[in-house]
Amino acid sequence: MGYEDKVRKVIPYTPGEQPRGEVIKLNTNECPYPPSPKVMAAVRGLDERDLRKYPDPLCSGLNSAIAEYYGLEEDQVFTGVGSDDVLSMCFLTFFNGHDPILFPDITYSFYDVWASVYGIPYKCIPLREDFSLDSSEYRKVKNGGIVLANPNAPTGIAEDLSIIEEIIEANPDSMVIVDEAYIDFGGETALPLLKKYENLIIVRTMSKSRALAGIRAGYAFGNKKAIKYLNDVKFSVNSYTMNTAALAAAKAAIEDDGYFREITEKVIRSREQLKTGLKDLGFTFGDSKANFVFARHEGVLDGETAADFAKRIFEGLKERNIFVRYFSRKVINEYLRISVGTEEEMRILIDTLKELI
Amino acid sequence: MGYEDKVRKVIPYTPGEQPRGEVIKLNTNECPYPPSPKVMAAVRGLDERDLRKYPDPLCSGLNSAIAEYYGLEEDQVFTGVGSDDVLSMCFLTFFNGHDPILFPDITYSFYDVWASVYGIPYKCIPLREDFSLDSSEYRKVKNGGIVLANPNAPTGIAEDLSIIEEIIEANPDSMVIVDEAYIDFGGETALPLLKKYENLIIVRTMSKSRALAGIRAGYAFGNKKAIKYLNDVKFSVNSYTMNTAALAAAKAAIEDDGYFREITEKVIRSREQLKTGLKDLGFTFGDSKANFVFARHEGVLDGETAADFAKRIFEGLKERNIFVRYFSRKVINEYLRISVGTEEEMRILIDTLKELI
Repeated sequence: MGYEDKVRKVIPYTPGEQPRGEVIKLNTNECPYPPSPKVMAAVRGLDERDLRKYPDPLCSGLNSAIAEYYGLEEDQVFTGVGSDDVLSMCFLTFFNGHDPILFPDITYSFYDVWASVYGIPYKCIPLREDFSLDSSEYRKVKNGGIVLANPNAPTGIAEDLSIIEEIIEANPDSMVIVDEAYIDFGGETALPLLKKYENLIIVRTMSKSRALAGIRAGYAFGNKKAIKYLNDVKFSVNSYTMNTAALAAAKAAIEDDGYFREITEKVIRSREQLKTGLKDLGFTFGDSKANFVFARHEGVLDGETAADFAKRIFEGLKERNIFVRYFSRKVINEYLRISVGTEEEMRILIDTLKELI
Repeated sequence: MGYEDKVRKVIPYTPGEQPRGEVIKLNTNECPYPPSPKVMAAVRGLDERDLRKYPDPLCSGLNSAIAEYYGLEEDQVFTGVGSDDVLSMCFLTFFNGHDPILFPDITYSFYDVWASVYGIPYKCIPLREDFSLDSSEYRKVKNGGIVLANPNAPTGIAEDLSIIEEIIEANPDSMVIVDEAYIDFGGETALPLLKKYENLIIVRTMSKSRALAGIRAGYAFGNKKAIKYLNDVKFSVNSYTMNTAALAAAKAAIEDDGYFREITEKVIRSREQLKTGLKDLGFTFGDSKANFVFARHEGVLDGETAADFAKRIFEGLKERNIFVRYFSRKVINEYLRISVGTEEEMRILIDTLKELI
């Protein structure tokens, strides 16, 4: 038998491809612009003598910069190696009950993977047909916790804050994690609710709007007690998760608010340009508030279904070095998730789609 | 009741203090020398346009450099955010059985913390009085896995490879993790055993001998199947753990073998100098093969026990801005763990100890 019967066997999350070289990469919702020049200056300015020493395990410099930016206290902030690390720690910390945790059937596909790897029971709640959230479904199920992405991925749909609040209010005995990875591109943040509810954690990432996917930095807001629980678990897994370069880079990114606003506005403009282009080509999609559009097309060839079309276009684009995201899972296999790039990239994409259709 | 009854409540690992400013820091086994100049050159040479993109989730460049250096295949290597991340992933992956895992009662104090956070039953096996490992104790207990640090921490004692092999051979149904964080400073690596045994994972860190504590890089060697299991779990927790800066820095550190050998020899020379100085002051200690010495003193003041002495000296040194490690746990509270610094730092330490005693 050997050691293998004691191995935790899992079906891991599949991240989007990371092709190198000259491609148009619209498959993992990165920012099409480089990070603030102050980020690279901070990294280049590191003292090599500091690299021999462990980084600050409390991430104080970064956490206080984040706290100041959002008008919170430093001990209401938790940082990690991308929002994936932060979310993973939240699952491990707050979802330790017996009842299943709840999240939508169509959402970030890492949620069920974390539940599985940590042995957390879960139940997927169907979205409405237009991909909107039915909050009443979260008010009647005894649960061990709730996770909501707002705006949701891969749909891009943002819910009104009142819907999110209804769910938090109806579940005082469960931690509700609101994953706001895409909130900077639209939608209403749950941040004002932190004062009102103890059972709320808000998770953010610097990989999208802060153009820092390569640095791996994410953060969470919560009340002090919840952040303390989160830190206890983090310090039971890895005391020093954020390296010296990440701490410096992420701090510089948070501090350069002007640059952040500038690139965010550019992405939002490109997104609206992309929507117009896709609409002209016969695609349909919800009103994305994220930095991607989740688009469907009835198909054009004889007997071609929406799913056939999505797959054909995905592959055709890839052959032309344009990477978008295609999911093979039923229902969403009728869609392409296209990250918002520069205006130039959006033009090339639309032209190539015209050719392919 | 609120959300708190579903919280995972843990007693986290306590890392050594990370004081900033002008201190002599001999408390977390960092390297007293900066990393290779090529490391900082690699970090400064990063293209800022790369920071906006996710890093390579497979860490191919780094893993192939490590594989080449040690004469292994790339898919026998796993990298993570320090050896703490690697060990934590190993616990989660390989210790999923029902029987308790085994490790010595005096060893790296993170092992029982990982076991607790992941709900893994464990049993501590006493070391002999001289802190050596009694391999027979590991041959008669039905277990779910074994973890051995060699050289051990905080004792610094290295075991002959034959002892380690006896344990691996006697437990074919358990994964044996050999934590070689300190192996570059002495002791025999278990690397040659990888060809013979499937149930072996060897874990290394770049925080000590490679002077890269601030970059957070650790790695593991194993057979391909075991590394695949480890990657499946890693990709179920966080797809991108190593950021772009860490990948570049760690690769440069591995590639500069000349510099690595030079600083390692210097640390070994300083260690032997430290041993001589401590011995002259009446300390006793085992034959450390690590970059620290675990030293005990009978005490000098009226009625002063070894534990009183250790605590008094720890505090006295701290007041003089010299940080060493003191553990309050019984038995080991009679010892000070002193990291090896530069020759100059060792001179100042010994002079200060003279004063204090």
